Amino acid sequence: MTSTIPDSTTTAPPLTLPGTEAADHGRANAQPFAQVWTGGSVFELRTFDRPRLAPGESLVRLTAATVCGSDRHTVSGRRSGACPSVLGHEGVGIVEETRGNVPVGSRVVFSVTSVCGRCRNCRRGLSAKCTSVRKVGHESAESDWALSGTYASHIHLPSGVAMVPVPDSLPDGVAATAGCAVATVMAMVEAAGDFSGRRVFVNGIGMLGLTAVGAALARGAAEVIAADPHPDRRGLADRAGATRSVEPGTEIDDVDVALELSGTEAGVRSCIDSLGIGGTVVLAGSVTPGPQLSIDPEQMVRGWRTITGVHNFEPHHLAEAVDFLAADGAALPWEDILGGPVPLTDLPHEFRAPTKALRTITTP
Amino acid sequence: MTSTIPDSTTTAPPLTLPGTEAADHGRANAQPFAQVWTGGSVFELRTFDRPRLAPGESLVRLTAATVCGSDRHTVSGRRSGACPSVLGHEGVGIVEETRGNVPVGSRVVFSVTSVCGRCRNCRRGLSAKCTSVRKVGHESAESDWALSGTYASHIHLPSGVAMVPVPDSLPDGVAATAGCAVATVMAMVEAAGDFSGRRVFVNGIGMLGLTAVGAALARGAAEVIAADPHPDRRGLADRAGATRSVEPGTEIDDVDVALELSGTEAGVRSCIDSLGIGGTVVLAGSVTPGPQLSIDPEQMVRGWRTITGVHNFEPHHLAEAVDFLAADGAALPWEDILGGPVPLTDLPHEFRAPTKALRTITTP
Repeated sequence: MTSTIPDSTTTAPPLTLPGTEAADHGRANAQPFAQVWTGGSVFELRTFDRPRLAPGESLVRLTAATVCGSDRHTVSGRRSGACPSVLGHEGVGIVEETRGNVPVGSRVVFSVTSVCGRCRNCRRGLSAKCTSVRKVGHESAESDWALSGTYASHIHLPSGVAMVPVPDSLPDGVAATAGCAVATVMAMVEAAGDFSGRRVFVNGIGMLGLTAVGAALARGAAEVIAADPHPDRRGLADRAGATRSVEPGTEIDDVDVALELSGTEAGVRSCIDSLGIGGTVVLAGSVTPGPQLSIDPEQMVRGWRTITGVHNFEPHHLAEAVDFLAADGAALPWEDILGGPVPLTDLPHEFRAPTKALRTITTP
Repeated sequence: MTSTIPDSTTTAPPLTLPGTEAADHGRANAQPFAQVWTGGSVFELRTFDRPRLAPGESLVRLTAATVCGSDRHTVSGRRSGACPSVLGHEGVGIVEETRGNVPVGSRVVFSVTSVCGRCRNCRRGLSAKCTSVRKVGHESAESDWALSGTYASHIHLPSGVAMVPVPDSLPDGVAATAGCAVATVMAMVEAAGDFSGRRVFVNGIGMLGLTAVGAALARGAAEVIAADPHPDRRGLADRAGATRSVEPGTEIDDVDVALELSGTEAGVRSCIDSLGIGGTVVLAGSVTPGPQLSIDPEQMVRGWRTITGVHNFEPHHLAEAVDFLAADGAALPWEDILGGPVPLTDLPHEFRAPTKALRTITTP
């Protein structure tokens, strides 16, 4: 396996799945199980009662999950999280039971947020910032949403979690990236505005950075410059179609759109400093506390420059993610992006000794 | 006269103007004259040859001009400018001679920028940042564009300066504010996005700030909070419809849109710190060098926050400015905003001893 991307996503080749509702119904009494994170890098495989579904809820049998870098941050202690809990918020599966509108047997991906739909933020189209948001893969295993994560045989989806059907053409491993990495990039490119003929800078080439390279090209960017310290990642960026890839610190200027995924101080600095007249930086990597950065108000004003932040995404971005993966996203170098699969039973090892590949977690 | 707004705009009540083309043609041989700024706070009234118009050019007989704060900065030495020159870039007048498309006799306002329409910035809709931009009221009186400013009987408009017709209902003094202050606010509100039901903070209540209060309300803002150190300006903000007006330093939070016009470090800081989830700051006041400001990338990301700069405006903003002034802008407290008129011959005094009123410069 090519050694590629640390601290990023893991995804599985497609599993052979029963395609019929009858077959799904036949499994409808299976007892769910999950890798429960109990602190440190310790996981325990536990079984759970099948949840009794409330109106609007679904139970999805997972066929693949991927490991987001934020879960690695949780397990390593850099980020706080409910404990014990079923982690994992990128996945794909089959609706096995539902009291909602998506038919049993549908193959779906789902949003990372469960939202009320009624609060001020939801009503203004910022449901990711719902005032009573709960999150897939972030809830206590001892709460009323025990099966909240994707490192499990099943995930229990409240009515506030958006689900999007996935076309058959999309392999499980590719589809599983939609629900966090790819949908977040769709939110970023929306915030960035027009890409047609633009000079684009992508800083940080993990799963999001690669998607950003592909999405910028798909939207008509004239030039995409990718920066990453790892030669292997720069190679992946080149294969994703980047015009050129550079080491961090390389001076880049006159940029129209800079997409920042590294979350590092130097990365944010280089993106802000790269902007030309009318340029926009979209920050998405800075999700942990870090140093403040200075900006020059006069440069912002005289240069019509913009700095904007994006965190998570809206349901329409998830639908766009699936569309992107089924169309232009298919050209990304998935054979090198995706490794594995790793069986769910090996998840603890995956967290203790992360490989440098985008591995896939499969559930039996 | 009510003592109101220092360092801001000056505008004249409407003059009685010849309304017919015949009458205009009757004056078409008058020799132009202008107050030429020769450095410091010294002006000289000089006459000029009538310019020979190139294709696309026009000669506009000015009926009123207003004094933008940036001209005060130029005269006080805080801002560099061509010298000797005819200053002034806000004005209204009658097309007296033309080789362009706007008929002789039309009453017009005009853009502050003369642009090529062909460069990269022009082609992408950022003509204000045209790579060969020249500016109304900024060119040497000894150049081929001697009559570039509005402190004159006539202004010579190259083909690259947008002109917008003004409805008869709009008084000269009100119309003259369109071409810098009001059009810039139109660019700001476009950059800010949706105002409907939003909580808006306007920092700095000069001509732009008052316009911003009115424009935010016209776009459906639920609440507009205005901040200014001067009690008289806060009073004007109240009369313009602000929900409340406060002294700078008053803590304002959970703001959706902050419009920064003061250009002060504290003002920019308070606008950034005021933002709620999904909030946007539009900076426009910071047009002179000032200290850097710190931002927190994590707060930008997790809060979907945006900081954006706006400088000058596009032709469509000028058209929107005229529409705004003719509709909702009519509700602004013009009787207190506009003072004067001051005859052009008194311009030097106006710069040496600025009154606290938005005075109007009239040309004979």
